[in-house]
Amino acid sequence: MSQNVAQKLISSHLVSGEMTPGSEIGLKIDQTLTQDATGTMVMLELESLGLDRIHTDLSVQYVDHNLLQTDAKNPEDHLFLRSAAQRFGLWYSKPGNGVSHPVHQARFGKPGVTMIGSDSHTCAAGAIGMLAIGVGGLEVAMAMAGDPLYVEMPQIWGVELTGELPPWVSAKDVILELLRRHDVKGGVGKIVEYHGPGLKNLTAMDRHVIANMGAELGATTSVFPADDAVKTFMEAVGRPGDYSELLADEDATYDITETVDLSSLEPLIAKPTSPGNVVPVREVAGEDVFQVVVGSSANPGLRDFAVFAEIIKDSQTESQVSVDVNPTSREIYEDMARGGWAFDLMRSGARIHQSGCMGCIGMGQAPAIGRNSLRTVPRNFPGRSGTDEDAVWLCSPETAAAAALTGKITDPRELDKDYPRPELPAKYSVNTSMLLEPLPKDEALKVELVKGSNIKSLPDFEPLPDDIELPVLLKVGDNVSTDEIMPAGSRVLPFRSNIPKIAEFVYIQVDDTYATRAADTDGGHAIVGGENYGQGSSREHAVIAPRYLGLRVVVAKSFARIHWQNLANFGVLALEFDDEADYDALGQDDVLKFEGLRDALENGGTITATAGDRSVQLRHHLSARQVAMVLAGGRIPYRAAKL
Amino acid sequence: MSQNVAQKLISSHLVSGEMTPGSEIGLKIDQTLTQDATGTMVMLELESLGLDRIHTDLSVQYVDHNLLQTDAKNPEDHLFLRSAAQRFGLWYSKPGNGVSHPVHQARFGKPGVTMIGSDSHTCAAGAIGMLAIGVGGLEVAMAMAGDPLYVEMPQIWGVELTGELPPWVSAKDVILELLRRHDVKGGVGKIVEYHGPGLKNLTAMDRHVIANMGAELGATTSVFPADDAVKTFMEAVGRPGDYSELLADEDATYDITETVDLSSLEPLIAKPTSPGNVVPVREVAGEDVFQVVVGSSANPGLRDFAVFAEIIKDSQTESQVSVDVNPTSREIYEDMARGGWAFDLMRSGARIHQSGCMGCIGMGQAPAIGRNSLRTVPRNFPGRSGTDEDAVWLCSPETAAAAALTGKITDPRELDKDYPRPELPAKYSVNTSMLLEPLPKDEALKVELVKGSNIKSLPDFEPLPDDIELPVLLKVGDNVSTDEIMPAGSRVLPFRSNIPKIAEFVYIQVDDTYATRAADTDGGHAIVGGENYGQGSSREHAVIAPRYLGLRVVVAKSFARIHWQNLANFGVLALEFDDEADYDALGQDDVLKFEGLRDALENGGTITATAGDRSVQLRHHLSARQVAMVLAGGRIPYRAAKL
Repeated sequence: MSQNVAQKLISSHLVSGEMTPGSEIGLKIDQTLTQDATGTMVMLELESLGLDRIHTDLSVQYVDHNLLQTDAKNPEDHLFLRSAAQRFGLWYSKPGNGVSHPVHQARFGKPGVTMIGSDSHTCAAGAIGMLAIGVGGLEVAMAMAGDPLYVEMPQIWGVELTGELPPWVSAKDVILELLRRHDVKGGVGKIVEYHGPGLKNLTAMDRHVIANMGAELGATTSVFPADDAVKTFMEAVGRPGDYSELLADEDATYDITETVDLSSLEPLIAKPTSPGNVVPVREVAGEDVFQVVVGSSANPGLRDFAVFAEIIKDSQTESQVSVDVNPTSREIYEDMARGGWAFDLMRSGARIHQSGCMGCIGMGQAPAIGRNSLRTVPRNFPGRSGTDEDAVWLCSPETAAAAALTGKITDPRELDKDYPRPELPAKYSVNTSMLLEPLPKDEALKVELVKGSNIKSLPDFEPLPDDIELPVLLKVGDNVSTDEIMPAGSRVLPFRSNIPKIAEFVYIQVDDTYATRAADTDGGHAIVGGENYGQGSSREHAVIAPRYLGLRVVVAKSFARIHWQNLANFGVLALEFDDEADYDALGQDDVLKFEGLRDALENGGTITATAGDRSVQLRHHLSARQVAMVLAGGRIPYRAAKL
Repeated sequence: MSQNVAQKLISSHLVSGEMTPGSEIGLKIDQTLTQDATGTMVMLELESLGLDRIHTDLSVQYVDHNLLQTDAKNPEDHLFLRSAAQRFGLWYSKPGNGVSHPVHQARFGKPGVTMIGSDSHTCAAGAIGMLAIGVGGLEVAMAMAGDPLYVEMPQIWGVELTGELPPWVSAKDVILELLRRHDVKGGVGKIVEYHGPGLKNLTAMDRHVIANMGAELGATTSVFPADDAVKTFMEAVGRPGDYSELLADEDATYDITETVDLSSLEPLIAKPTSPGNVVPVREVAGEDVFQVVVGSSANPGLRDFAVFAEIIKDSQTESQVSVDVNPTSREIYEDMARGGWAFDLMRSGARIHQSGCMGCIGMGQAPAIGRNSLRTVPRNFPGRSGTDEDAVWLCSPETAAAAALTGKITDPRELDKDYPRPELPAKYSVNTSMLLEPLPKDEALKVELVKGSNIKSLPDFEPLPDDIELPVLLKVGDNVSTDEIMPAGSRVLPFRSNIPKIAEFVYIQVDDTYATRAADTDGGHAIVGGENYGQGSSREHAVIAPRYLGLRVVVAKSFARIHWQNLANFGVLALEFDDEADYDALGQDDVLKFEGLRDALENGGTITATAGDRSVQLRHHLSARQVAMVLAGGRIPYRAAKL
């Protein structure tokens, strides 16, 4: 039977289940990546599992998120991560080496391979024909321990690309167009597979831009075929032997079909405060701009910096604009310097920062309150920049450059310039000076974990009682992101290995009384949510921390995929309204009463909760495996009990 | 009468007083510099003085200290500083343009000119024959308002340099040798003037290293002649017309004389936690090193980065070491890139950060607790790095490079390498893209100050009562630094324009109950200190914040110069023990009772305080002008009353 690329990747790694959309499948995982903000927790999980050495082909621990070393916590996290990588047999990418996704694609990515990562933009590796999925940290720990990844078989959404991008329009505008059409949950339960004649005009790094921000569509992942563009990339990064072709069969079909005519696109921009608020740049032209940030995993390629540099070159950036450039990796920075683009940037007034996630994750270059900041990053959720009342817009490097020059939001087509087409080198710089190889096993087993005072063991997770009464301590609306549940930023990220401390920040921007009220409530509590609950970042801290505060059940209209899995992993029951109208009936401080939960969950069908004299019908789509985990209190006690 | 360089600089700017060491002189000030950590307060002072436009020849507002934009406070400080610079007629150096001292020397410095700056390392400009003095912010505000600078005429300490530095020994070792000999208060009340045949082997940037860390000796400033080395520098930075020769007369004499034979020096290092803890590197060789930081105003020159790069080039830095390089300015970074040194650094595993003060002021790259960090910065006071129990060592770029390669403290002479002598360009890069010129006066007067929510007006300062009873809320030992009184670092620096908030951090590392106890004590309080009270940074916040908490009198064995002036400026009475044995007799919670203070201060002689049934004799060396200021409550109410 003919297959598309996604089906080929899945079928070649299928260890359990049927490839029917919606049913749970188990996939063999070849590679993993972890970054520092989620990785300390993953390493603590490996420790608590008693793992001797990872079972994956290759796993890499990156350090890219938290690069603001304002006190000892951060360098002590680095010492811990390095020791854990050595202990368990991972590669270690030192702080400052670069953002995980582009570094991984350049140094380790391979067509036909599966990868999961404790970062929601792991999907970027779909650019080179990998099946790469962002998941919670515990999923990654389990994959390193040799377990398959369990996911619901997604629908395959074929997006046919035709035509060619016009001048001043680039890959970022392609994904912004999809977000304009489908908003932040249009991809839930789907793999986006790109195909068609327009592909030949998109390089592997252009595809990275598009695959990366598939996360913003809510998609399980995005995949591109491994074709000549990927071959060219693998040659450019010095690994031609790691290339193999992976194409859809000629008569492959898709569960959903759509077409994007590249020739018809124009410069787009996402307004604050959602990646789905997309409009043409021309519609918002003229607004004052105070900051421009170029970089992040959403526009990481040498081309992205080069085109920005060539547009602003020989001009001065407007004096009120802070122009912050964040080379994605040291290899790319070297090539920026070799090609002269770094000089162009410096001379025109840009600040060049060390490689890392920086402003994308609120670790530096926060904007002033309410002042427009145009960024090439993937997300603009409220406060993610580090500033509570921020005004962050998402756009292409071209649109960012136009704003840097004029101090206003400007359609780059209006600049009185020729569209630059930077000449990129056929061979990129290779610099592995900050990538530490795994130790041989006999040496690795002797390594002791270096735990600073801020690195705390995981709390214990109790089983879910059969009968339970839970006050609703918080009711929230649609599309609540994990940034709102568990903020990142410089105030919070440093505590990512310290659950009791980080729990103080749960929902702090939404309701700063929640954490205290939850901690003061004995016997647990519930939260009521709207649609797409828990969208955005994969951080499992958005479950572990509220779970530590007593969260046992979330009732929502629908859940974002990764957060839904994280809830199950840490023993929080995710239930959906059978009748969404009940959402309006439930209020904060209602008490939800459940009886005979075990039977109800195991037997399937609806679950009845009572709230006063009202009864609410709820359902779940947990697999039998997940039900058992939730009842046990989560995946760690569940697996411990099985051993 | 024949004069040395310092005497020529003073006599050509003398507006009042006699050049007799110890007596107060008034000096005309030609230039000022302010940086962001102290500058917001200076700009608020200009505002409260009602100034229309500065009276100096040239004043520059730099932004270099607080470059961690973790939330809106920092970019809002930048918007405020930019608007204030435009309003009052200053140059504005945008964030990321570089560290004030080397940028000022390259772009604005001139032999024969006087400058004060609200930064204790302002003295670095002595490298090119300027009389440059670090003072409190209010002194700078007053100089911009046209007032002279009042200081006690220092002794001139002639340091004769002979011979030539051997391989692997550089300018940093010269100043470390002086610190080894004289410790952190050896220079109090003195100007260090360098002369002799060894000078010809020291470039202007070598001299900058030495003059900069004159601050660590406690010296009023350091001066070098303007000779051929300075001429070469002025040509290299593209300003040959700004050079004029300034030499000591042939038969000039000095109040104190000393000789340093450059040929006899060896690599030196200051152990934690004082710049005065200097020992030969070989005596501490072999200790593990976890971080190396290169940069700051203490080793800012292109040569310093180039020599470091050439030593580590073609090798990998040791994997446990975090190598952090902080180019001092965008001009220097450009030249680092042009000369290939930036590549060498990247390829060998260094992280390159944006230009600014970074780790020197605890704004980034904090070390892990107790892990050795070797830095080319000027200071290693406890906690200044951002880490409470830090272990920071001060050394030359050569010694830093040896540690980066070996992971241990290593005498660089032990490396199996030839000593590199980098070939520097005859002309440095000139890049003024981030230096905004002053506005013409008519435009300037229309500018409105942009005040973010974190920028608070100065509190009111009440006159000093004639009779007053003050409990001693804190007693501290010798050499207490302004870093201990008013910490910097990422937790505190962002509040530099918000006195009520920053006051919560006063003395927090020494006694974290002090601020609360002080705020709870009505009617003011006193502090008892040892020798050299208030050494280090010029920050006037170390007076304004405790003054806001009720500090009225400090009784100490002796005071550091800048802090002593700041105390008078903000109406805090600085008294010294007539008999130092009384220091031991006074304890925390004793109540000091003063009667008839006005008469006692105005008539000179000793001042008697009673503590219980004990009486303590105290003295002051305030000028009549300073006494009047202190009695009025400080310089601002004093000047307001005069107008």
